[in-house]
Formats: sequence, C-alpha cells, structure tokens
Amino acid sequence: MSVLPFHITKKSETCRARAGVVHFVHGKVETPCFVPVATKATVKTLTCEDLLEIGVEMLMCNTYHLMLKPGSQRIAALGGLNTFMGWPGPVMTDSGGFQAFSLGLGIEHGSKKKCLYFPDASPPLQHPPKRRSGQMFATMDEEGVHFRSVYDMKKHLLTPEKSIQTQEELGADLVFVLDECTSPFSSYEYTKESMERTHRWAQRSVAARKSNQAIFGIIQGGEFEDLRKESARFIASLPVDGIGIGGSLGKSKKDMHAVLDWIMPLLPENKPRHLLGIGVVEDLFESVERGVDLFDCVSATRNARSGYVYYSSKAGGTQKNKYRFKIAHASFALDTQPLDPHCPCKVCQKYTRAYLHHLFKAEELTALRLLSYHNVYFMVHLVKDMRKAILDDKFMEMKKKWMP
Amino acid sequence: MSVLPFHITKKSETCRARAGVVHFVHGKVETPCFVPVATKATVKTLTCEDLLEIGVEMLMCNTYHLMLKPGSQRIAALGGLNTFMGWPGPVMTDSGGFQAFSLGLGIEHGSKKKCLYFPDASPPLQHPPKRRSGQMFATMDEEGVHFRSVYDMKKHLLTPEKSIQTQEELGADLVFVLDECTSPFSSYEYTKESMERTHRWAQRSVAARKSNQAIFGIIQGGEFEDLRKESARFIASLPVDGIGIGGSLGKSKKDMHAVLDWIMPLLPENKPRHLLGIGVVEDLFESVERGVDLFDCVSATRNARSGYVYYSSKAGGTQKNKYRFKIAHASFALDTQPLDPHCPCKVCQKYTRAYLHHLFKAEELTALRLLSYHNVYFMVHLVKDMRKAILDDKFMEMKKKWMP
Repeated sequence: MSVLPFHITKKSETCRARAGVVHFVHGKVETPCFVPVATKATVKTLTCEDLLEIGVEMLMCNTYHLMLKPGSQRIAALGGLNTFMGWPGPVMTDSGGFQAFSLGLGIEHGSKKKCLYFPDASPPLQHPPKRRSGQMFATMDEEGVHFRSVYDMKKHLLTPEKSIQTQEELGADLVFVLDECTSPFSSYEYTKESMERTHRWAQRSVAARKSNQAIFGIIQGGEFEDLRKESARFIASLPVDGIGIGGSLGKSKKDMHAVLDWIMPLLPENKPRHLLGIGVVEDLFESVERGVDLFDCVSATRNARSGYVYYSSKAGGTQKNKYRFKIAHASFALDTQPLDPHCPCKVCQKYTRAYLHHLFKAEELTALRLLSYHNVYFMVHLVKDMRKAILDDKFMEMKKKWMP
Repeated sequence: MSVLPFHITKKSETCRARAGVVHFVHGKVETPCFVPVATKATVKTLTCEDLLEIGVEMLMCNTYHLMLKPGSQRIAALGGLNTFMGWPGPVMTDSGGFQAFSLGLGIEHGSKKKCLYFPDASPPLQHPPKRRSGQMFATMDEEGVHFRSVYDMKKHLLTPEKSIQTQEELGADLVFVLDECTSPFSSYEYTKESMERTHRWAQRSVAARKSNQAIFGIIQGGEFEDLRKESARFIASLPVDGIGIGGSLGKSKKDMHAVLDWIMPLLPENKPRHLLGIGVVEDLFESVERGVDLFDCVSATRNARSGYVYYSSKAGGTQKNKYRFKIAHASFALDTQPLDPHCPCKVCQKYTRAYLHHLFKAEELTALRLLSYHNVYFMVHLVKDMRKAILDDKFMEMKKKWMP
C-alpha cells in the first residue's frame, strides 16, 4: 500500500544507523535529515531563501496553529502550503493533536520542563487567554480532542477525520495520523488505554485519507516496554508510508534510548522513521545510531531567540554544555571570533561574537535572525555530516569525537 | 578647508535640484541619496548583505545609543563602526545631542507627535526607567547637554568636544557638530538664544576635531526667517565639509518648505546638504526640489514594524494615504499580489500580500524583516529615481506624477 518511495543507500555495519533517500512530491530528502519547524508557515525569523541557502531539505508546519490562523481553507484557496509560503521543497504537517492537547494535559501535569517531548512544543503564546486555576483547554474522548483555541477561546473538535481533512487542505507532502501524546507522569493504565485509542485513531486517520499525500502512523506507549512493543507492531501493520515515534519518551535520555531499542527491531526496514519533536545534539546521535531517519525540532530557532548559540565539539561544545553557549555572556564583548570558528555558515563567515553580543544585548531583531540562521545551519549540517559518516562507515567514530 | 570631495554632475533647469557625487573614505555616494538609519549599529531587522543587495550607499548610526551601549571605546577597540558592523560603505554618525535632548525637552513640550523632526527619533525604549511627573532627563547649558542614560539613569555630560571625540572613536566617515534642536513650541527668544549657543558649539566642535573625518555643521533657528538666515550664513562661513539642516522645521510641511526656501540661496553650491531626520515621500520630493542632497530617516523600518507598507503612485500610493497601506487590513487576506506590483525588490518578486498579512497577524519576526526590506528598498530607490530624473531633466515631471 506504500506510495512513498524510500531507498536505503547504506546500512552501518556497527549499529542500526542507515542512510537513505525519500522521494516526496516536492523533491527528495536524503536521510538522516533534520527538518526545521515552520510553526506558522515560517521558520521563525528566517525566509525561504535563507533555508535553501542553508541546505534545508524539508520543513514541518504545525496544523494546530495554521488551522486556527489563517485557517486551512484559506491556505488551500491560496494554493496550499508550498505556494503560500514560497517554499519549493517537501513539507510535512503534524496532526494538530499534540498542541491542542499539550495546552490541556501537558500543563496540568506540570511536565513542560521535565518531559523530553515538551521542550520542543510551540513557543509561549503571545496573547494567551486568561485561564482559571484548574481549567483545562483540552479533553480527549473516543471522538477526538475537544479544545479551546488559545487565540479566541472558541471551542473546536479535532477528530482523526478532521485532522486528515485539514492536513489535506494544507497540502503537505507528508501528513501524520492523529495520536495522543501521553505525559511521562501518566500511569500504566492510562497510557495503555490512550495507546489503544491512538491505534483506533490511526486506523480512522488512514481510512479518512482522500489525497495521495504520504501518511505516517505514530507509535505511542509511553515508557512501558510491553506497550511500546505492542504499539510498534500495530503501527507497522497499518498501510502507512512511514513510522512516527511519539512522546512521551520517558523521564530521561536513557528512557528514550530504551524506547528506541525496544521498538526498532519490530519496524519494517523499508519505511522511513520519524522521531517527533527531538533535536538536540546528543539525542540526534543516539537516535541515528538506533535507526531513526527523520527529526523535527524547534530547538535551533528557540534557542537562538534566547541567545543560545550552538557550537561544535571542535570549538568547545560538550555534552555538559549541551553544545551551546550564551551570547549575552560578558566574555564575548570583545571576542572577534565567529560564533563557531569551524562553521562555514554565512553568519560565521561575516560576523563576530562581539557584534552579535552587542546586537543581542541591544535587543535587536537582527540578532535573533542571525543566531537562528547559524543554529539551523548547525543542526541541518550536523545531521548531513552524520549521513556522510554512515556512507563512509564512520558514524560511530564521528559520534565518539562528539561524545567522548 | 574642505577635505570632502563633492562634485555636482547636473543641476536642474527648472528648480534647485541637483545630482552629485560625494567621495567618502569608504566609497562614493551618489546624491540625492537616502541614508537608512542603523540606530544601534544595525538597520533594524536587516543585515549588511540585505543593505548591499538593496543598493544602500551609506548608513547613519546614532551616537547616543552607541556611546551608552556598547560604548564608543569598545567599538574603537573592535576596529570602528565599519569593522564592527561588517559594513563596507560610508557611515555617518549624528552628534548624540538630539536623542540626549529629545528625552528631556521633546517630551516636556509634548511635541512627539506634532514636530516634523520627532517622528523620526529613536524607537520607544524597551526598558525605560521610571520617571516622576515633570522630571527631566536632559538639561542644556553653555557647557553641553546634561542627561541621564535611559538604560541605567547614570548621569552624562555631552559637550561639543565629547561628541566629536566619541564620533572619532566610532570612526564614521562623516560626523556632525553638536547642536540643540529646538521644539516647534519654543519661543522666538528661546530659539534665538539656543541658536547662538548652537553656533558656539559648532565652532567648538570644529576646533575639537583631530581626525580626518568629514564634518557637517547644522543650521538651526526654528521657524523664524531671520534666525534661519542668520544661522545659514554663520554655518556656511565655518570650515565644514557640508551643511546639516536641523529641526524644528516648524509645525507643518509648509513651514518646512519655507525654511528651505529661506536658507538654500545662502548656502555654498559646492558643499553637500543633509536634511536631518526627514524621509517621507512628499518631504523627499519637496526637499530635493529645493536642493537637498542627503537624508536620513528611520521611518522606512519603523513603519514596517508597525505593518505599514510603502507603495508607489502607480500602485495606488497618494499624498492622502502617505504612499502606504496597513498589511494587517482584512482586505489583504487573500490578495496574491506582491506588496507593490511595480517594485522589483526581492520581497515583491517572491511573496504575496496574503502571506505577509498572515505573518504580520501571527506576529512573526519574519514579517517585520520582509516589510523592512521592502520599505528600505522603496525609499532608497525612490531617491535614486529622483537622481536619474534630475540627470534627464525630468525631476519636476516625476514629481508631478507622484504628487499630482
């Protein structure tokens, strides 16, 4: 039933890592690949020309935001996401469920800071409506996600069918089934119940599809081995084009590795695997090693807007400092080096840490833009370099250099 | 005494307009020329690559902001403004006096909205210190401007000598003498007294100069004919490289035209003339017609950040709508035209009004950046087109098309 051509070019001999090519309607994507998030139809502060110049191959847009503003029908009337945004390459959209849901249960569980998944959710809303203590924006039942818009508090119901219809209107190359992303604080019982519903939603999502967009299922099951395995087997059995791996991925990085170790052997080799919302250096290495092909994450741009600059292990990046430094630190005031002396990006070829330190401290938007450009370049090329390393049978060697 | 080569290429036969070339240390500038303002060492939201691509020839930086943050000595230690910013072309700096002063008297007089000069002052500060009613940030005496920093409330004294020293540290191609910009609500007596002090400051500024930077004097005198003429004669008699024309330029556009009509015949032909802080379409036509060569203004980028888009008379711009429209207006939600269908800029070649309407409403920084790019392109090329029209003896014809 698969309509999405995916070819594995090379498998690592020492781990599960693999390099491949996916052929989407709007062009090919060489995997592993880091997919920047264009939340509201733009990668924050950047333009399509920037993204092409950086070497970005694919973008992820958020259905939740776009269905509310400006609306999927308006985007359809304007020719779909590619025409609307002026982006020539492939685009994927999420189901909208995660954000509709995270504004309810996610906040209720206080997991914003602790869950591996949540740090990568959409940025804080600029005009959130007032909420009384304990009031929830989202509830879940068999039908779908009932939620109130954070823009105007209007009630919405997102069903699997509605999510697919909305994603078809948006017109991405690749869509995701509606799922529930449980919290790392959910009990075994709740996680099991939710996973079973997520499976029924996956079937309904696949059945609702009318276009020839590629569709990915999503594995859930929290941090529980039997549930994750059951979910992997179930999603693998569906007529989907690829496999999404959703959160919660547990409370620690080790939990995430365990989840990947449990499920990877159960997945078909010939379908691409997308790890949802993951994208910091360490996680990328661990996940590629375990056979993940695609990643989306807002961390590159969100970090940039907070003044965090990514830098390579050669330049001083370590697991401990998370391969990033704060440009606002006084030590950069007179530093005439580029952000990362080993980075070939346009910003590093031209601007100094001292200048960017000044611009950031002066709250200039130009700073956020230049830091975003560098950080996206960094992540995209880190994963491109991993791909090269896989092709050269040097992935584990590369990983050791970055994470000694 | 002039060290600044300025050649007039062509004089209009029907008005005072002229086209010329000024040769600065960092390159030539073809006049008339619109000079975007890089307040804190960046044109807000844009990069040097953008500015070069647009065709910007020269930038204006604000001494007030840079002397406080990051400090002129730090910029000197980092190689001066050009190296610091990565800008290869000529730069001018103002004296710092206007902004030090405008935070005191300007606000006190409530002239922020009414004065032709003030709309072009620095944007609202993001973290202004609290001020008690009637408390002034700035006072003026023979010595100079006593003011408190808006960043940390520390006391500073800006004398003519200090201003020139600071501008020398910043290292611009062209510096301005310290002056007092009176308010349109200042009395004749105060304006006269202030003008005479401004003349003494101009002499002190010229005497304080140690570098080979070009220096411009500034004509003051408010809206009073005899004072303006006296000031024009005085400034013209100084060993300066060019003539600045400062505000207040009166309470209306007619007052501004009258001021220019009074002073222009008294100025030497062979020195460039810079009209400080002016830069809306109508004023540019009226001033070029009267023989002004250089303009600086923040309006292009400030308007962009408020969602105002410049557009040409061909595309619907008129004196009444001030050659701009609000991109947030609902009528643009499905408009697939470029911002200005007659504009060859990169943004208009690529993005639709509908997309920019969405990005602006979604409060995306990308919107501010794309609108700023277009607006700066618009102003820079409007004045470049005026220059071409002067060379072709068609300036008044062009003006008539824009302002029928």
